Amino acid sequence: MKVLLIGAAGTLGSSVREVLGERGHEVVTASRTDSALRVDITDPDSIGAMYDQVGTVDAVASAAGEVPWLPLDQFEHSDVRNGLIGKAASQVELVRQGLHRVADNGSFTLITGILAREPIRTGAVASMANGAVESFVRAAAIELPRGLRINAVSPTVFVESMEDYSDLFAGFEPVPVRLAANAYVRSVEGRQTGQVYRV
Amino acid sequence: MKVLLIGAAGTLGSSVREVLGERGHEVVTASRTDSALRVDITDPDSIGAMYDQVGTVDAVASAAGEVPWLPLDQFEHSDVRNGLIGKAASQVELVRQGLHRVADNGSFTLITGILAREPIRTGAVASMANGAVESFVRAAAIELPRGLRINAVSPTVFVESMEDYSDLFAGFEPVPVRLAANAYVRSVEGRQTGQVYRV
Repeated sequence: MKVLLIGAAGTLGSSVREVLGERGHEVVTASRTDSALRVDITDPDSIGAMYDQVGTVDAVASAAGEVPWLPLDQFEHSDVRNGLIGKAASQVELVRQGLHRVADNGSFTLITGILAREPIRTGAVASMANGAVESFVRAAAIELPRGLRINAVSPTVFVESMEDYSDLFAGFEPVPVRLAANAYVRSVEGRQTGQVYRV
Repeated sequence: MKVLLIGAAGTLGSSVREVLGERGHEVVTASRTDSALRVDITDPDSIGAMYDQVGTVDAVASAAGEVPWLPLDQFEHSDVRNGLIGKAASQVELVRQGLHRVADNGSFTLITGILAREPIRTGAVASMANGAVESFVRAAAIELPRGLRINAVSPTVFVESMEDYSDLFAGFEPVPVRLAANAYVRSVEGRQTGQVYRV
């Protein structure tokens, strides 16, 4: 299949790219900085330009999204809005604009994360954005046309990221990023929809 | 206790007002149109003015929030952002500005809804906003200072609203709005925090 992977340059995106490649898929990569195809998913015009350049795909896989991390009493109102836009409205826009650009029976796979259900300090806006994406995925699944499917991948912290996050995620059992990448394969090649794959 | 109730004019808000009153609480009501105290919760300045006028309270109870209802393929990008702001960022702003205005051991109670977990047609943005609020509540609970607490009330459709929504919620078992109002009492008077009370 032809898979458009957004956020291909990060820890997760790199692994998703590798695993999808091993499965024989043609992976077209996009990211904010490091890919041939540049995209800012907070900008609907940028998303439109990306889709125009890529043409029809069989699957859209997102490993992108950014949220501010701050203690609860230090968030400004703009941080809250920016977090919702940076990880939730942005990924929803990938779906909205992709509705008429993904081939019949194609799929969307979005990224959320364990903070949707298990909070940590400084992660309130991340939790909020993840919760938004998970509920959107369940809801969009029942309205998608042409056999299109949508799932979310909701991983805990990665072994590969523990050096940066070991204090915030103290006591969490990290998983190899490859396990999360495999959940993308499951979403792309499987037939399920409306699922949140906890990794 | 002195309870600030936002969204006091709606079906739910009216019932919350009544039930809190029966429990002997002093209920200060605010809403967009029908209360002595006017507030537009999508406008941070309006929220600030409301808090300034009310002074310190023991509890903030929100029954407010608005989202667009449309088939998935008819949402514009602005609808998605407006829905996230209208029900999620807005209620989070009540908490953010209330952090230093609610008395020690006080509480915040926010409104979400069953669509966070059980989708219906045209409700994708409502689902998303509800999911955001529920995850935020779980996250904020672990960072609130001074014994402050936060919970969400997540009701299914109300008996009192079935006339308007019976097709959308076909097969859902409606509950009397008073059951949801009681969950506010539980949140205000109880000691739990980070809970999503499903009604």
